[in-house]
Amino acid sequence: MPRPDDRASDQLRPVRVQRGWLDHAEGSALIEFGGTRVLCAASVQDSLPRWRRESGLGWVTAEYAMLPRATNTRNDRESIRGRVGGRTHEISRLIGRSIRACVDFKALGENTVQLDCDVLQADGGTRTAAITGAYIALADAVSWMRGRRLLRGEPLITSVSAISVGLVDGEARLDLCYEEDSAAETDMNVVCTGDGRFVEVQGTAEGTPFDRAELDALLDLAAGGCAELTRIQAEALAR
Amino acid sequence: MPRPDDRASDQLRPVRVQRGWLDHAEGSALIEFGGTRVLCAASVQDSLPRWRRESGLGWVTAEYAMLPRATNTRNDRESIRGRVGGRTHEISRLIGRSIRACVDFKALGENTVQLDCDVLQADGGTRTAAITGAYIALADAVSWMRGRRLLRGEPLITSVSAISVGLVDGEARLDLCYEEDSAAETDMNVVCTGDGRFVEVQGTAEGTPFDRAELDALLDLAAGGCAELTRIQAEALAR
Amino acid sequence: MPRPDDRASDQLRPVRVQRGWLDHAEGSALIEFGGTRVLCAASVQDSLPRWRRESGLGWVTAEYAMLPRATNTRNDRESIRGRVGGRTHEISRLIGRSIRACVDFKALGENTVQLDCDVLQADGGTRTAAITGAYIALADAVSWMRGRRLLRGEPLITSVSAISVGLVDGEARLDLCYEEDSAAETDMNVVCTGDGRFVEVQGTAEGTPFDRAELDALLDLAAGGCAELTRIQAEALAR
Amino acid sequence: MPRPDDRASDQLRPVRVQRGWLDHAEGSALIEFGGTRVLCAASVQDSLPRWRRESGLGWVTAEYAMLPRATNTRNDRESIRGRVGGRTHEISRLIGRSIRACVDFKALGENTVQLDCDVLQADGGTRTAAITGAYIALADAVSWMRGRRLLRGEPLITSVSAISVGLVDGEARLDLCYEEDSAAETDMNVVCTGDGRFVEVQGTAEGTPFDRAELDALLDLAAGGCAELTRIQAEALAR
Amino acid sequence: MPRPDDRASDQLRPVRVQRGWLDHAEGSALIEFGGTRVLCAASVQDSLPRWRRESGLGWVTAEYAMLPRATNTRNDRESIRGRVGGRTHEISRLIGRSIRACVDFKALGENTVQLDCDVLQADGGTRTAAITGAYIALADAVSWMRGRRLLRGEPLITSVSAISVGLVDGEARLDLCYEEDSAAETDMNVVCTGDGRFVEVQGTAEGTPFDRAELDALLDLAAGGCAELTRIQAEALAR
Amino acid sequence: MPRPDDRASDQLRPVRVQRGWLDHAEGSALIEFGGTRVLCAASVQDSLPRWRRESGLGWVTAEYAMLPRATNTRNDRESIRGRVGGRTHEISRLIGRSIRACVDFKALGENTVQLDCDVLQADGGTRTAAITGAYIALADAVSWMRGRRLLRGEPLITSVSAISVGLVDGEARLDLCYEEDSAAETDMNVVCTGDGRFVEVQGTAEGTPFDRAELDALLDLAAGGCAELTRIQAEALAR
Repeated sequence: MPRPDDRASDQLRPVRVQRGWLDHAEGSALIEFGGTRVLCAASVQDSLPRWRRESGLGWVTAEYAMLPRATNTRNDRESIRGRVGGRTHEISRLIGRSIRACVDFKALGENTVQLDCDVLQADGGTRTAAITGAYIALADAVSWMRGRRLLRGEPLITSVSAISVGLVDGEARLDLCYEEDSAAETDMNVVCTGDGRFVEVQGTAEGTPFDRAELDALLDLAAGGCAELTRIQAEALAR
Repeated sequence: MPRPDDRASDQLRPVRVQRGWLDHAEGSALIEFGGTRVLCAASVQDSLPRWRRESGLGWVTAEYAMLPRATNTRNDRESIRGRVGGRTHEISRLIGRSIRACVDFKALGENTVQLDCDVLQADGGTRTAAITGAYIALADAVSWMRGRRLLRGEPLITSVSAISVGLVDGEARLDLCYEEDSAAETDMNVVCTGDGRFVEVQGTAEGTPFDRAELDALLDLAAGGCAELTRIQAEALAR
Repeated sequence: MPRPDDRASDQLRPVRVQRGWLDHAEGSALIEFGGTRVLCAASVQDSLPRWRRESGLGWVTAEYAMLPRATNTRNDRESIRGRVGGRTHEISRLIGRSIRACVDFKALGENTVQLDCDVLQADGGTRTAAITGAYIALADAVSWMRGRRLLRGEPLITSVSAISVGLVDGEARLDLCYEEDSAAETDMNVVCTGDGRFVEVQGTAEGTPFDRAELDALLDLAAGGCAELTRIQAEALAR
Repeated sequence: MPRPDDRASDQLRPVRVQRGWLDHAEGSALIEFGGTRVLCAASVQDSLPRWRRESGLGWVTAEYAMLPRATNTRNDRESIRGRVGGRTHEISRLIGRSIRACVDFKALGENTVQLDCDVLQADGGTRTAAITGAYIALADAVSWMRGRRLLRGEPLITSVSAISVGLVDGEARLDLCYEEDSAAETDMNVVCTGDGRFVEVQGTAEGTPFDRAELDALLDLAAGGCAELTRIQAEALAR
Repeated sequence: MPRPDDRASDQLRPVRVQRGWLDHAEGSALIEFGGTRVLCAASVQDSLPRWRRESGLGWVTAEYAMLPRATNTRNDRESIRGRVGGRTHEISRLIGRSIRACVDFKALGENTVQLDCDVLQADGGTRTAAITGAYIALADAVSWMRGRRLLRGEPLITSVSAISVGLVDGEARLDLCYEEDSAAETDMNVVCTGDGRFVEVQGTAEGTPFDRAELDALLDLAAGGCAELTRIQAEALAR
Repeated sequence: MPRPDDRASDQLRPVRVQRGWLDHAEGSALIEFGGTRVLCAASVQDSLPRWRRESGLGWVTAEYAMLPRATNTRNDRESIRGRVGGRTHEISRLIGRSIRACVDFKALGENTVQLDCDVLQADGGTRTAAITGAYIALADAVSWMRGRRLLRGEPLITSVSAISVGLVDGEARLDLCYEEDSAAETDMNVVCTGDGRFVEVQGTAEGTPFDRAELDALLDLAAGGCAELTRIQAEALAR
């Protein structure tokens, strides 16, 4: 199975970032990885969750959701069903943990930054696009806070980006689109810091279990992809 | 209080329509009324709700929702709260009723068109923008169905558009932005067909009750606004 | 289609009001419009919702519900289903807004009046009967508060009543019963103050859209019905 | 502590039954035990719960609820809270079990009778009033079914009534009002058939545990009260 | 129908108590009545429910639940269904009321003891095993509190135990297993204090209603069973 | 920080397996890793989820939960809160995916095996103990099915076991207890098949991000632990 868009196995899809897509949010970015389109908003609140109060530390949290017609066939709304599904919960938690890896909470002061990642259109890799875009929204919200002197230091220790990799037809491929993701034997999401260390590694054998050599190949590919995304984030934030 | 954007009292905000904003949906439109931005998607399903089965008639239904940071300050997600709020319910029902007014269900065949109106950014008039955009998404979904010979006739009897009007400082104004909406003594949403008849009239005194003369002035203004929107819809669909 | 009970097109059904139907409530009324029977209770609480505290202003809120066998065929309880339906939400909000239009919140003092409108039997026009009865329950609760010196002035600026009107077989009719309501092309609920101004106008084309002349005829009819109800309310409160 | 209304310790409060209080229900009764007022409706459905289908047997089920202002101070609605409370669940189950004790399900045919017991006003003994009234509503619904030849025999084997008894100040008392109920050391609800056998005995020590002699005294008192209620039910059904 | 395990009609199943089954809980017991196995945990909290605060009194509350495969066929989890069922609610309330009958809340101090009774395996009589085991867990938690000087006196006035009895084939039997429970015409749960008085008596006719002589026989049997359980509890606590 | 129980860094805690702990379940195991105690039950159902029907393939699914007092301080029940938390959802999904990796669904026939993993006591590594124990319960359920000729072949392709590893004080350690887990900079759960390939790799930097060398060391350690668990599983199943 060749790649649907003829990419090289280690090539990202075209990544496009539009900062400030929302007028009200303290930071926001519409990020696209090919057909995947995620709107990331950062909301600054001068309050903390109850368990975090009087700690002198800030907090960053995230919520992920998908519009009902982001996908090929329509999905019912979680608000209508009255409960958040397991997948949504899992991804929201992943985004929150990933982004928190780049934050110095003392420097953030007693503020909460709430990240909302809403998938407007899905074509594979929505969670990794969400993490990559959420970092940009956070960075802009931090600038906004700096301008209002709400910080106690520089809260961004490093940057964070994420990419999916997988084994398709026995080949390790970077940045799977939906079609490849469905066909992959193994699917892995990797989150890295700007200096190339790992924040999250989540590999799952969808079909045949994978061996150590395959795992190593996927990790190499992902590390390269994250390095490229780090560059794209920096460029976007420099504009 | 002058209009925040210096519009004439009977002038619409700039209206912008992008058809086909989504790759997967059978019809879609991103519609903007000034800072209000609503993504409308039409999903065609070859099934019917249980109570409608074996009637020989199709169905059109709608759901409205708002992203958490569409507004000035962030709102909690209804999926997290575990229940859909009264306002959301009310607007979803309004959109569904309004759009159904232009549909011949026999001609639609035994299909359901599900309309999803998601407010990406809110600056007043989100429900009327949703109705105006949902009609366009529906029209495109109907074309899609026609191409696949899923119809039994021409299901669109007329078009439908909607606008808000209100009394601000005693003056009847068309297409209120959020700032005006908050200050209005009376707020009214009017839905009209393409030939100028009324589908819905919902007037509410937020402050002082209104008299018949004021009501008449608001209805005149709204009828004019809907006529202008009908023209904009036709233009967008002709592109 | 003649009227099922041979009324004139501008004639109300027999309206019956029993004040003080409940022993515990600070104000209560069992109100009947023909076969429609709504129990309205006003509960006085010396507290305020969180967002209203320390404003120096009182609050009035309303909840509407229907017993499961109020209707021809039984409906499941919303408590069992675990969620309040859209129609219930919408009507509760309408009643609250309507009644608040006659209240001076400063004079009410920092108290909440909670209005509960429970439909014991439904035969059309339950929401308008609920508004008309809730005003009476409120007026009695205000008297109760006056007796206990809980007020800071006279909180009732005016009275509020409501009626449904509709187009049936092309004829504008006042106070539709269930059978007429089901057959109406257009259905409209109108809420007026005691001095004849409008608080709410909610007209919906169930079938064919309506034109301006039809809308005007319906508004005239409703204004007359509300005036008659204002007289009935005054009489009941004078007993 | 004397009885608040000077009754003898073995005397019921005035019991009043209005049959056919609802126009739509197949059977209904508004039953009053002093200030306690419960509206009982029986709805006949020609279907069965899934687990009961194709058994050749009918079913009877019950739901109990209280209007928010039935009590001295207002209670929040269970529909708003989104869940039915433990007390409501428990009483609904008790009513269902109690009423089923008098039914021959083969004779009932493959029909469900749904009993709704809604407390309009509460002054102690709401669950026992509900059972006593629900039997009357059921009997009327059975007559309605007989008239339409929906039965396969005589489904009512016996009648069912219920009463509360309790120990107040060491004295065994029949039919406690709210004030006595709150002060009782032991509270007991007893459901009997028309021929004096027991369907349910639920005794609870609210304060000091009770001994066998006290239990015997309470059972005697309850048996007498149920016999009196059986007579009242027969009289009401004979009217 | 002979007893499935050839017991005498007044004989308990083998009762086995393992105290301290949990490392973290302040008191715990795994209690077995034949194949019925309930894990009871007592958690001490130095806080009180809101309505109990500043009363100078402690509180004891209980929750009952069943693992999904405690029974012959699997039951869905209540957490997945999103609501606690009526039976669970009812039993949790029964356990709480029963255990509170042996507690002096003044002596307990302003502490809450939360009792969790989780049925690991069910073979009839789970609620009565839960009560009997919960008392042991509570007694150990009280010892733990005494060791930490958290008490203001001796909070255990007496002990509490519980047993089920029933009429099977017209015979009064003690401690029904599941098979007998399913076949019983009458089923009764009795809770007694250590000195033989009654805390709860809950008798239900599952089939034919029962007469006073049958009720008396069941009460005698239950009193004997509870006396035996009181002895077993004392022995376990003495080890 | 030395290991709390003086283990070598590559040493498992004592692992204890009791097969057949439940009388009713088709397969069950109580598995202990030190103080962590998980009850795993396998329920065989001759039905399939809707989306799987008429596929000729079976299904295996899993649910994970924790008793409220499994932990140091009590947690509220998810049934009471009315929703399953994100962590529970995430772990249930992990267990299901992991166990499915060893199953040939064609050989399983059109049956569902439902795995319930209930944590009775928690001391770190509950999800990996659950996976390791669930495999044993599944193997026994498969034997049960084989005895009843419900299978179409041998459904267990391989075995599956799981272990946690982590970086504590810069040292890679196997099988973290709760105290170590709380102090770990990086925490990783690894699921392996009996022949040493990977099914899941989930590494998370709780504090400092980890580099490739650290990741490699953790993977080596986990692979060794899983090999040891595979041996323990085989021994338990051979008894």
